[in-house]
Amino acid sequence: MIYQDTIVALATPSGAGAIAVIRLSGKDAIHIAEKHFKSISGKVLSKQSTHTIHLGHIVEGNKTLDEVLVSVFKNPNSYTGEHVIEISCHGSPYIQQEIIQLFLRNGCRMATAGEFTLRAFLNGKLDLSQAEAVADLISSENEASHQIAMQQMRGGFSSEIAKLREELLNFASLIELELDFAEEDVEFADRTQFKVLLERISFVLKRLIDSFAVGNVIKNGIPVAIVGEPNVGKSTLLNALLNEDRAIVSEIAGTTRDTIEDEISIGGIGFRFIDTAGIRETKDVVESIGIKKTFEKIEQAQVVVFLADSTNFKNPTFVHTFKIEIEKIKNKYPLKPILIVANKVDKLDASHIDFLQNDIPNIHLLSAKTGLGVDTLKDKLLSFVNTGALRNNDTIITNSRHYDALLKALDEIHKVKHGLDTGLSGDLMAIDIRQALYHFGEITGEITNDDLLGNIFENFCIGK
Amino acid sequence: MIYQDTIVALATPSGAGAIAVIRLSGKDAIHIAEKHFKSISGKVLSKQSTHTIHLGHIVEGNKTLDEVLVSVFKNPNSYTGEHVIEISCHGSPYIQQEIIQLFLRNGCRMATAGEFTLRAFLNGKLDLSQAEAVADLISSENEASHQIAMQQMRGGFSSEIAKLREELLNFASLIELELDFAEEDVEFADRTQFKVLLERISFVLKRLIDSFAVGNVIKNGIPVAIVGEPNVGKSTLLNALLNEDRAIVSEIAGTTRDTIEDEISIGGIGFRFIDTAGIRETKDVVESIGIKKTFEKIEQAQVVVFLADSTNFKNPTFVHTFKIEIEKIKNKYPLKPILIVANKVDKLDASHIDFLQNDIPNIHLLSAKTGLGVDTLKDKLLSFVNTGALRNNDTIITNSRHYDALLKALDEIHKVKHGLDTGLSGDLMAIDIRQALYHFGEITGEITNDDLLGNIFENFCIGK
Repeated sequence: MIYQDTIVALATPSGAGAIAVIRLSGKDAIHIAEKHFKSISGKVLSKQSTHTIHLGHIVEGNKTLDEVLVSVFKNPNSYTGEHVIEISCHGSPYIQQEIIQLFLRNGCRMATAGEFTLRAFLNGKLDLSQAEAVADLISSENEASHQIAMQQMRGGFSSEIAKLREELLNFASLIELELDFAEEDVEFADRTQFKVLLERISFVLKRLIDSFAVGNVIKNGIPVAIVGEPNVGKSTLLNALLNEDRAIVSEIAGTTRDTIEDEISIGGIGFRFIDTAGIRETKDVVESIGIKKTFEKIEQAQVVVFLADSTNFKNPTFVHTFKIEIEKIKNKYPLKPILIVANKVDKLDASHIDFLQNDIPNIHLLSAKTGLGVDTLKDKLLSFVNTGALRNNDTIITNSRHYDALLKALDEIHKVKHGLDTGLSGDLMAIDIRQALYHFGEITGEITNDDLLGNIFENFCIGK
Repeated sequence: MIYQDTIVALATPSGAGAIAVIRLSGKDAIHIAEKHFKSISGKVLSKQSTHTIHLGHIVEGNKTLDEVLVSVFKNPNSYTGEHVIEISCHGSPYIQQEIIQLFLRNGCRMATAGEFTLRAFLNGKLDLSQAEAVADLISSENEASHQIAMQQMRGGFSSEIAKLREELLNFASLIELELDFAEEDVEFADRTQFKVLLERISFVLKRLIDSFAVGNVIKNGIPVAIVGEPNVGKSTLLNALLNEDRAIVSEIAGTTRDTIEDEISIGGIGFRFIDTAGIRETKDVVESIGIKKTFEKIEQAQVVVFLADSTNFKNPTFVHTFKIEIEKIKNKYPLKPILIVANKVDKLDASHIDFLQNDIPNIHLLSAKTGLGVDTLKDKLLSFVNTGALRNNDTIITNSRHYDALLKALDEIHKVKHGLDTGLSGDLMAIDIRQALYHFGEITGEITNDDLLGNIFENFCIGK
């Protein structure tokens, strides 16, 4: 164990609930907890086996703070690899605070953000990319991002990197060994095999680097701009898209969040409907489609939904203006996918619908009210995401730090390959290989420094 | 076990945190969890001892939902007295929801509010007043209410009631036995002893009933109205009063609540500063002290703090108006304690202070800015609460249902005493005794019905 001190923090979300969990970790965790825990059956905590639970009271002098369950995890069989105590107390903020204060007064210090996971990393329980996945896992809000974080936490990605790193390290050692015998002109490292390895590494790195595009989208959600006049049915459409998720959420009391209207999970992918309130409020969107605000929204978006009230299409002037507006947007953003959606088709008769479909190609007919066309709209939105990698269970990277390290590693591998092709001297090649190894190590945490760790863990919540 | 079905709910507060705990309880809890838990070491949950913890994954088919710790509690050694499984998962709302949904699809149903505690009661793990104390404990926000709830949960109060009930029941049986031998005119129940018991019961009931006044204040906080012109320093005063608590709160990230400014714990007692925003906003408080709004606030309050800017006292006209206003309030509310507080005394020189103290008796001099007089103000506020019972560790009742039952029981006991004094026949006396026993039983839950239980547990949170 690296640390001498024992840390404490609330591990469950703050606020009132049935129970809350307070976590202690460190050399003295069991010892400190023992002094303030009176087991119902008179047991002494330090004499208990790891992974056991004990009912009793948290006491300070003759004052009882709470009836609790205490879980004992003994070094190294714990999350942090240190002695860990988890106290499951009644979920009142007052009690949580009192118990934490008690331990702060008696030999613990408040954990910093992510410090439990940092200790887990430093004690070798997780590598760095796995530790980062823990934060991703907690913040994941849909199936896809959850699945990727889960895979990363289970080591899928870093074990692949670690394996390549080891093979590369092996060659590096052989080449460096050759340098010691430079006068004898021996070749310990088989150049053909080495070339094959470099090809393999390049292939894997390229695949991982390419996966970042989809990974980033999955992690952060796909920004979608809904453009349209007021009263074309934007909120009804959002509600229709949300329908299923909302039902699930409302079954679990308290999980509804204020912002849920703005992020919708479709097929496990998050779609963020960016700051669309402004559009709803401004009257001049269609009258003057070129206004700055709308374009700003479109620029931030990866997909544009151009929503119109289909009953307006009975008016030829409207149709004319509408087409011009769409052309304007398409000319300005030639590469941006634009979905033209006509809402309220329940109010049209068949002849109008026919006319509409012929007049405006690719128009998506929809009734947010009846639900007609909502599922196919979801399919269309989803089609903008390349979910191939996701379906194939390929490793996907989502972390820009990893992306950066992989790009640098690939660059070094290219240099090594070039050096091999041009007969670069072993000593110079060894430098490039070491550099590539360095970047591999950055990902898994073999290579690290305080600044890097600080940056990574400061984004964790306290208690993790 | 009374229930055939297995319930599931989130037991920790909703939202994101390091970990969350999902709780299952019921006949099939272990069996259901086992089917979706893959232990790291290949263990089978149902073969594990009670109070043990197991690391593994929650899986559905070949999809891994999360890496979790599963705690096993075996009937009857659990909170509910049934088999209980607690799953400690990563604290993302998405994961919480997915795991709960998984169990809902696989043999569990969603727990209703307080259903875990209801089952604990029905399975004899807690009596009714202890179960009610669980909810009080979770909602307690200061030391005093926490202490009372804790005492009640540990059975202090109901064991006293239960003991008296048993003694009374004993006499009831003897008197009813006499009825069977009515023709022989025997007396099994010693009337003198019985009278002593009735006196003892009356004494205890009266003490408990009396404790409700302080109990209620402790549970709900003491409403305090701060009356005063704008800019006399109300918020500075609130901040000065809050100072210590705030420092504690800010040490624990996330425990700060938006409403904390309005409730301040002094000496473990909550003081609620009721809807004081209105006073700050309205200019006419002093100009026309009789306005309805101010009086409404004063009526809701148990204590009134009349706050003034002491620099104004240099102006004799102000002093004159001020005195009249205070008289008006005192005349309208002769029984309400009013603290006259002069803020900003740091801006006065000694002669002014002397003058102020002589001119307005009992004026409390204070500087919210420098902290002068803040502690003594706290002491004065606290002096309005009779904390004697609290200090003596006496049983204090806080629940209006208990208060009601105790009043009814006392009434019946009086009838029995009266019957005993007037030589009422045994059969009539037995009816009164039975009625008193009924009200005792209402408190501890020996006597209960679905409506009563419904009312009690609907106020619990889900997951408790």
